[in-house]
Amino acid sequence: MDSRELREIIKIKQSYLCVGLDTDIARLPDGFSRDYRGIINFNKEIVDATKDYAVAYKMNTAFYEQLGSNGWKALEKTRDLLPTDVLSIADAKRGDIGNTGRMYAKAFFETLSFDAVTVAPYMGIDSVEPFLEFSNKYTIVLGLTSNKGSQNFQTNPIYEPHLYKTVLKTIKSWGSVDNLMFVVGATKADSLKEIRKIIPNHFLLIPGVGAQGGNATEVCVNGKNSNGGLLINSSRGIIYASSDKNFAKDARQKAKELALETKPYTQHL
Amino acid sequence: MDSRELREIIKIKQSYLCVGLDTDIARLPDGFSRDYRGIINFNKEIVDATKDYAVAYKMNTAFYEQLGSNGWKALEKTRDLLPTDVLSIADAKRGDIGNTGRMYAKAFFETLSFDAVTVAPYMGIDSVEPFLEFSNKYTIVLGLTSNKGSQNFQTNPIYEPHLYKTVLKTIKSWGSVDNLMFVVGATKADSLKEIRKIIPNHFLLIPGVGAQGGNATEVCVNGKNSNGGLLINSSRGIIYASSDKNFAKDARQKAKELALETKPYTQHL
Repeated sequence: MDSRELREIIKIKQSYLCVGLDTDIARLPDGFSRDYRGIINFNKEIVDATKDYAVAYKMNTAFYEQLGSNGWKALEKTRDLLPTDVLSIADAKRGDIGNTGRMYAKAFFETLSFDAVTVAPYMGIDSVEPFLEFSNKYTIVLGLTSNKGSQNFQTNPIYEPHLYKTVLKTIKSWGSVDNLMFVVGATKADSLKEIRKIIPNHFLLIPGVGAQGGNATEVCVNGKNSNGGLLINSSRGIIYASSDKNFAKDARQKAKELALETKPYTQHL
Repeated sequence: MDSRELREIIKIKQSYLCVGLDTDIARLPDGFSRDYRGIINFNKEIVDATKDYAVAYKMNTAFYEQLGSNGWKALEKTRDLLPTDVLSIADAKRGDIGNTGRMYAKAFFETLSFDAVTVAPYMGIDSVEPFLEFSNKYTIVLGLTSNKGSQNFQTNPIYEPHLYKTVLKTIKSWGSVDNLMFVVGATKADSLKEIRKIIPNHFLLIPGVGAQGGNATEVCVNGKNSNGGLLINSSRGIIYASSDKNFAKDARQKAKELALETKPYTQHL
């Protein structure tokens, strides 16, 4: 998938919504088995309920790996049941050099057939390029994250310009808008204007809306561009909208609400 | 395992050797099936052949994940066949925040029972602490890596002190010598003196000896401390010492040679 196709999906669905399938076995509603099969069945119901509003689905590998190889089975099976008109994202935050990086890229792009994978920048060019070498796939590099610890290095005041700005400036030249995106936390919505000066054209994956406190409207106002340029992720706020028998209906409702909130900012597409 | 136990193993085996089980299905000798079972059987022979000299085994998850859930089975099974008198390391380079980080920690420390896991520093404290909360386990944070791309951010001259030094200085206070180590590439052996000024007491995991050009003697001279303080990793140089029927014998010989090279620097223990 490239930026033109992604723009088209956003235009058709009038939504920037990425649903985070961060499925925790401990939080499955009654009726689901407490194992990887329960996770797959739950994910299937969530995907069916939200796919009219979701332009992307993001699976954080941590939630699956805690179950070992069975968790990876759930990752594979969930990937397989995603519809074709969404961007599928492995939120893996991998990063390793050369030949090893290529194996991570192969794992997520080929073996599991994800369209996109998140990557950590610390090790530099030879940890990012192996992902960029795959055609028709997106590498999504961590830029500015939404957590407290982003102050330790990303925005540490001893470094001017801030490290995250150097990361964005440096890495944007390694790929194009068709194979490279960046992660920017929604709780940093006021930083988005600054970030758009550095990377006006790339898509941004924005976690942190909802449970983490980010505001979707602010993200749109400060972050959208002529391609749309945004994937706004919500995980817990949607998949755990309720825990009773209406969980899927309630998840659909929350997905719809988030799409409606950002709809005014898809009109220009 | 804590630093006292690790020191004891190094003293007994008179070796700093960590064997990297970066097993590539494409490089298995004849006679092994070209699937995850072949990887497990090969790893078993390598471990049996090298365990007299190895104080640690390190499995890079990329090599296993390229096979999907079956690769994770090979990871689990290989972990299970490691002897008890070694430190088992998942070279996973994970990093995610809070609750998500805790799931990665659970995956490697509990589900897979590794003694140690490598972690990326970019996201800061709430991506490292979830690992440090597990008792009797080691979190190994990327400090200065051995690849070309380390120049992009870790040693980028626009930042003084270099980013990697800030990473070491900041993170060393988050843990102790009994639950925290750092990765420092062997090709940066001349940086080890500087690094030892910042973190004199922590263990260092040193990749890059052998195939990547690092020199084990230099590493010992500049990097050892009163606990030993070193785990010197070799992967390809040992596990692919030869590809014929003598592969295990040749792997043992290469492991022995590396242990002998560094033996003069274990005498003080």
